[in-house]
This record gives sequence, C-alpha cells and structure tokens, in this order.
Amino acid sequence: MKTLFLPLALCAAALPSIAAAQMSDADIAAMRDDARHNDTLAHEITEGLTTEIGQRMAGTEAEARARAWAAQRLNGLGFANVAVEPYRMPTWVRGAETAAIVSPYRQAMHVTALGRSAATPASGLTAEIVGFASVEALRAAPMGSLAGKIAYVTHHMERTQDGSGYGFAGPTRWNAPSLAAQRGATAIVIRSVGTDSHRNPHTGGTTWEEGVEPIAAGALSNPDADNLDGMRALGRPVSMHLTLTPRWLGEQESGNVIAEVPGSDPAAGIIIIACHLDSWDLATGAIDDASGCGIITAAAHRILESGEQPRRTIRLLWAGAEEVGIYGARAYFEAHGDEFHALASESDFGADRVWKVDFNLPEGASADADRLSRVLAPLGISRGTDTATSGADTSPLVGSGVWAIDLKQDGTRYFDLHHTPDDTLDKIDPAQLRQNVAAWTAMLAVFANSAANFAPNSPNP
Amino acid sequence: MKTLFLPLALCAAALPSIAAAQMSDADIAAMRDDARHNDTLAHEITEGLTTEIGQRMAGTEAEARARAWAAQRLNGLGFANVAVEPYRMPTWVRGAETAAIVSPYRQAMHVTALGRSAATPASGLTAEIVGFASVEALRAAPMGSLAGKIAYVTHHMERTQDGSGYGFAGPTRWNAPSLAAQRGATAIVIRSVGTDSHRNPHTGGTTWEEGVEPIAAGALSNPDADNLDGMRALGRPVSMHLTLTPRWLGEQESGNVIAEVPGSDPAAGIIIIACHLDSWDLATGAIDDASGCGIITAAAHRILESGEQPRRTIRLLWAGAEEVGIYGARAYFEAHGDEFHALASESDFGADRVWKVDFNLPEGASADADRLSRVLAPLGISRGTDTATSGADTSPLVGSGVWAIDLKQDGTRYFDLHHTPDDTLDKIDPAQLRQNVAAWTAMLAVFANSAANFAPNSPNP
Repeated sequence: MKTLFLPLALCAAALPSIAAAQMSDADIAAMRDDARHNDTLAHEITEGLTTEIGQRMAGTEAEARARAWAAQRLNGLGFANVAVEPYRMPTWVRGAETAAIVSPYRQAMHVTALGRSAATPASGLTAEIVGFASVEALRAAPMGSLAGKIAYVTHHMERTQDGSGYGFAGPTRWNAPSLAAQRGATAIVIRSVGTDSHRNPHTGGTTWEEGVEPIAAGALSNPDADNLDGMRALGRPVSMHLTLTPRWLGEQESGNVIAEVPGSDPAAGIIIIACHLDSWDLATGAIDDASGCGIITAAAHRILESGEQPRRTIRLLWAGAEEVGIYGARAYFEAHGDEFHALASESDFGADRVWKVDFNLPEGASADADRLSRVLAPLGISRGTDTATSGADTSPLVGSGVWAIDLKQDGTRYFDLHHTPDDTLDKIDPAQLRQNVAAWTAMLAVFANSAANFAPNSPNP
Repeated sequence: MKTLFLPLALCAAALPSIAAAQMSDADIAAMRDDARHNDTLAHEITEGLTTEIGQRMAGTEAEARARAWAAQRLNGLGFANVAVEPYRMPTWVRGAETAAIVSPYRQAMHVTALGRSAATPASGLTAEIVGFASVEALRAAPMGSLAGKIAYVTHHMERTQDGSGYGFAGPTRWNAPSLAAQRGATAIVIRSVGTDSHRNPHTGGTTWEEGVEPIAAGALSNPDADNLDGMRALGRPVSMHLTLTPRWLGEQESGNVIAEVPGSDPAAGIIIIACHLDSWDLATGAIDDASGCGIITAAAHRILESGEQPRRTIRLLWAGAEEVGIYGARAYFEAHGDEFHALASESDFGADRVWKVDFNLPEGASADADRLSRVLAPLGISRGTDTATSGADTSPLVGSGVWAIDLKQDGTRYFDLHHTPDDTLDKIDPAQLRQNVAAWTAMLAVFANSAANFAPNSPNP
C-alpha cells in the first residue's frame, strides 16, 4: 500500500530492471552521487599528467615518459593486467615558426605549423598572399594559379554545444593545404579552426591527398587573421614572410597503455573505455585528453573498489598517437581486434559536463539503455537519438561492429582551447569533471553487469 | 505655464546653467546622443593604428611610423596646429625569450621580458628556482641568499571595475626584480600581473632601484605560473633554463603629436586631452592605447565640426613613450609647461564604458561639474567623490596644479589584456567605445565653454 504514495519516477526506479544483474538502481545512484560529490581521482590524474609530464607529442620521449607514468599510476591504483603495448609510427615534430606581414604594413603575426606541414627554407620565404573566403573558394581557383604565392583561407566558426562547428570549419585545416599545394602555392596559412579571440593559434593535423607534394602549412591565431583580413580590405597587395621548419624523425616508438577490471564472465565480452595519452605539443593537453583519461580511470576505479566484481571485464585504453593519425587505435585493433568486445565508449571532448547520452546497442539491451537514462537524468543528462559511435581510439572496433555508448560532453568552450597553448589545467572545472565521473560510473555499473547479449553488430562495410 | 507639466529632471535640464556660455544642455545632449549612436571615428582611428601600424614600441621606427600616421590623420580631420614634437630617449628592445623547466619535470613555459630587463647569456642560464608567495616574502629574504638562483614571485590578482587590483599586484612587477637583484639572484621570473588564464605573459616596465645592477627579469603567463606552482607543491627542487636577450639601443628619437581645436579666448587657457601613441611590442595596442587616442580625437572632432567655436582651445596630446617611462609627458611639460593649461583629462584605460566621473576643479566650476554630471547620467555614468588626477601623460601638468576631470572606464577585463599579445582590435566593443566618445564630447562641450576661472591650483609639493 505504501508504494502507492510514491511518486511515479521513484516507483520506476524501485522496480528491478529485467537486465539488471548484481546492482540495484539505488546502489548505482549511490555510486553516482559519491562520484559527483567526492571524486578526486580524475583531477589527480589530469593534474599529474599536465604537471609531471606536460606536452606528450606522439612518438617523442615525452610520450614515452607519459606511458611510464600511466603504467605506474594504473598499477598503483590496483588495476589488473596493466601493459604498455608499443608500436612504431612516422613522427613529425615542430621547428621554428614565425610569420610577419612585410608589405604594405609591417607586423609580426602568431602562427603555428599544422601537423604534417612541410618546411619552408630555414630563413623563411616571402610571398604575396592570395586570400580565399572559404575552402570552396580555394577549390574553385584554377590549377597553377597560386604559383609563387602564399594561399590564405579564412572562414567563420561558431561555438556549439555539440561541437558541430568543428565539422563545419574543420575542412579549412584538413583540406585547404592540399588544395593550395595542388594549385601551385608555395605555402598556406589559414585562420585557426577555433572559437577564441586569443593570440594562440590552433594546430592540428592536415591531410595531404595522394600524389600531392606537401607545402608549408600554418594556422594564424584568430586575432592575427582578423588583422590580416583588415589589411586585405584596404585593397593593397599584402606580402608575408613565413618560417616554418618542422621535420620528420622517421619511425619512432609510440604505444598504448591498457589496464583492466577483470570480469567474472569471460564469455560476456569486454567493455572497452578509451581516452588518449598523447597530446599536441603546444600545451599540457589538459582537456585533450588528460581529463578523458582521468574520467574513465576514476569511473573504472570506482567499480574496482566497489567490492562487487563486474560480470564483464572493463578494459581501459589510454591510446597513444591519436592526434597525429590514430596510430594507437590501429595498433590496438591489430593486437586485440579478434577478442570479443561487447561495447566501446570514449572520453575525448574535454572536461565539461555530460549533457546527453546516445546509444547504439543490440535490441536485448534496450532495458539497460532505459535504466541508464533514468540513472543519468539527475545529472542533467538527457537521452539523445543519435547513433552512438564512441570515439577515434575505438573507431576500428566500432567499424567492425562493436556496440557503443556516447556520454556527450558540452563543447561550448572546447574549441576555444583545442590544440592551442591554452589547453592547460586551469581550464578544468572540478565540478563538471566530477559530473563526468558520475555519469561514467553509472554507465559502467549498468553495462558491465548487463545480462544482454552484445554479440557484434553487422560490421560497417 | 506649460513648463509646469514637465518632469523635474527635464525642468532642471532646461534651466540655463550659470556657467554655461554658448551651448544649452539640450544641445549638449544632442551631441552626446549622436556620438553614442553614430560615432565611427574612434573606431576608425583604433582600427587604423592597429592595422596599418601595429605595435609601436617607444623609440623604434614603428613608433615613428605611428607619429607620421597620426599627423597625417589629424591634419586630414581638419585639426589646427598639428605638430610632431620629437625628443630623444634611452630605448630598450626585446630579444629572444624562452623558458623551460628542466628538472625534475621537463616543460616549456611561456615567458616575456619585463621592460628594462637585463639579458641572460645568449645561450641562456640554468638555475634552481627559489619561490616566494609575495613581494613581502622576497623582501624578507636575507641579502645574498639568492646567489646563483632564479627568484620566482607569485601573487594573486583580482579583477576589479576600478583597476584597484593593479595597485595591489603591480609591485610584483615594479619592485620584485630589484629586490631579487639586491639579494644576489641571477635572474627573476614573476607570475604575470594580469587577471586572465591564457598563455600570454604580461610585459610592462620594472624599476631598478638606485645602485642595483639589473638582472634578467621575465613574467610567466598565469597558466605557466599555475603549472610551476603545481610542480613546487610536489616538493622537489625545480630548475629552469631561461633565455632573455633584450638590449639597449642607446638614445633614439621618440616624439609627441599635438593638434588643436582653437578657442576664441586665449586667456581662458587650454583644455589638454591626452592619450598615448606608443604601445608595448607584443600586440597592436588596441586598448592600450589606440582606443584612447580614438576616443579623445573623435570627441574633439565633434566640437570642431559643431560649427560653434569653443571658448577654450582644446589641445590633443598623442604622447610618445608612455609605457617605458612617460618620456613624452616630460617632453611635453618641458616644451609647454609655461602655457596656461586650464584643465587636463586623459583616456588610457581601455575602451570599455565610462562608469564614473570624478573632478578636481576650482570652486567656481562647481556648477559646470553639476551640469556635466547631469548630462552624463543618461550614459549610466555616476558622479564619484575621488579627486581626479587625469593620467600619466598629463601627470607633470597636474603635478604643477592644473585641474583635472577623470572619465573613469570599466576596468573589469582590462587586465586580462594589458601588456599582452592579446591587446588587439577584436577586443574593442564598438558600442562601449561610442559611449566613451559621447561622454568625452559632453565633457568638452561643457568645459571648453565654461565661464569659470581655471587658474592653476596650488602645485603639489
């Protein structure tokens, strides 16, 4: 009789879920709330990586130090089967980088080389700027028309909660350098792909199309791009002196770090949760992606310490070499792709709060999805209708049919910091970081124990 | 009879002020509102200086280009008696600047030399950091105790509307280097005197006490200082490699640019309105102080174009070499200190809105102060009770007894940008810039025509 007077939501929460194995909703809610209010581990890991290691450029000794740090930390936390899994990869490193407008005005500009940029001569090069309002405008330029020129591509990027502005503006970095090289440009500078107004340019990889000879490719900070746009508007030809001297070091060692919370039922498959250990070299990689490693590790550690062995093994993948071409993801898939992965999820979009959960699950897991949605609601997380894809470091797995859950983070300020010198520890909001750990803890508590069958989906073609 | 039905405020506005000469409150309000809604000149000047000149470090060829630009622009606007008044001054210029923690962790840091810093060897120097929580803690260190060390001084600066945080935190830059040198330090780095969280350190002049041999002195960006504080908290000795290679160029030419709106009554004295033309070298000096020159010039131009010749001459002083030691102010005072200056005012605190007006006026001008306060109120400007002091470029005049009015600007975000690479045009809010012009136009309209006697105050001792 008493239950008749409970509010409906509480009644629902009190009903045993069909798929629930060991833990009640109340138990999970208690774990969630403890993480939300008390977690310190995610911040400790973020602080440790950024303070004791700093930048962790893939293939460099700094990334190797980060792997050693990670393995020691994961062992110290009591995870099982901690392993460093090395692989080799072509390694690009930054050199000198300066830019200055030399005519008709004389002004220094802040520039940074894009990943996989070629080098200018050591003394730089001077050329007239040919400006384009978009990648499409550059694409429309005739082949050969940029001979002896520096191409410049500007664009407009809006801040969005879901990060969709990146898909819109990203081609300026991903594609414009190759298009400029095809049209004969001696170099290219782009407006940074970012939403801030600071003199800190955004690096990030560019892609050279098959057969294209790479050229020097840099990003100007947004205020510098504004300044250049202002100069161009005055109508006189504008020339730039540009020096970018990155170089290739050949094949170097990188590696993944893995660790596990062993499950009780090997036949139930592995839940793989991923972050990436490497960072770009301009900052300490706090939001990209030390915090992601902090979040997944703190959540898994809460399961480890709960005293209840999960049904499924939870495997942490601190991937190497994500930024420069997801070499770690490929190496992991080569080594482990034949193991039964039930589910993949990844944290690689900063440290601000989770606002939405999306799923891509077998039908038998729909009650678990309902249950998780219910447990996440008090964190301000709504259920989305997008198909979950996990992230870059698990993309080969998901491409082969592994199911996925996305705990989507608020990206409103992410592209202020992304790939800039400003990606530093002070940008982490401890309260939002803890909310992430709470959401991930709940997700693991539900899905590590789910009774559903996670046999892989039909692989994507 | 009709006026009986007017609201009280409007009645007051309609009453002729005792001190008013030519213009009614309604006329002034109309000028104010036209500036508020329609001014473009202040922004054009700010944009021109930042786009066509950029950084304008005192004593350099860039500052000389800025003077030529200013004279041409002021002549083009129709001002009278436009003149470049050169003087010579010792000139310091920045060199290479890099910093890296080398032990026990390895991380690059963003550093910039403070003005008048000495140089390290070209290859830099490496030394252990000795950290201090404040200037006072450094002062308490025994003489000789820092031999062979790099002193590091951190502090905490809050953002304030009135800029008072600068007075609180500024001694870290102004005084700590000299104190460190006296105690034997081989170099010093400080936390930037600024309120932002970007990897852009704040430069600015330091002061070497008499008899102190200067040492290399730099500022770390706030995120780098946070990182260093984090390392120090881990308890192991921290060593830094520091390279700062600024140098002195000896005496170089700098100069002031002056221009006038001639008054009808030479006996009434000059209203001098000032800004500074030079900037630090890290940015284009948009808020410090291109916008100040834009504001005073746009306001004076509105008087010039009003068709009513003011009683007093309005003299614009675009001062040179403010940042590096107010050489322009001193040169102006040497050349013009014996002329009758009735009143001084200066715009050198960014481009955000005026929120308060303060006065230091003879008793006979109290009705004018009341009148201006009334005319400023619709701009959201309240009357303060501080004694106006004008600014650095008019400080010798005010020190000799010239009266002053301060149109105080909102400094809440000023020290995010002050002396950093981020002081660029995109930081200017056009609406707030126009509000400044409106306030200045009203001030000039009232005080250029005031009937009061502005014979100088008793000079300060």
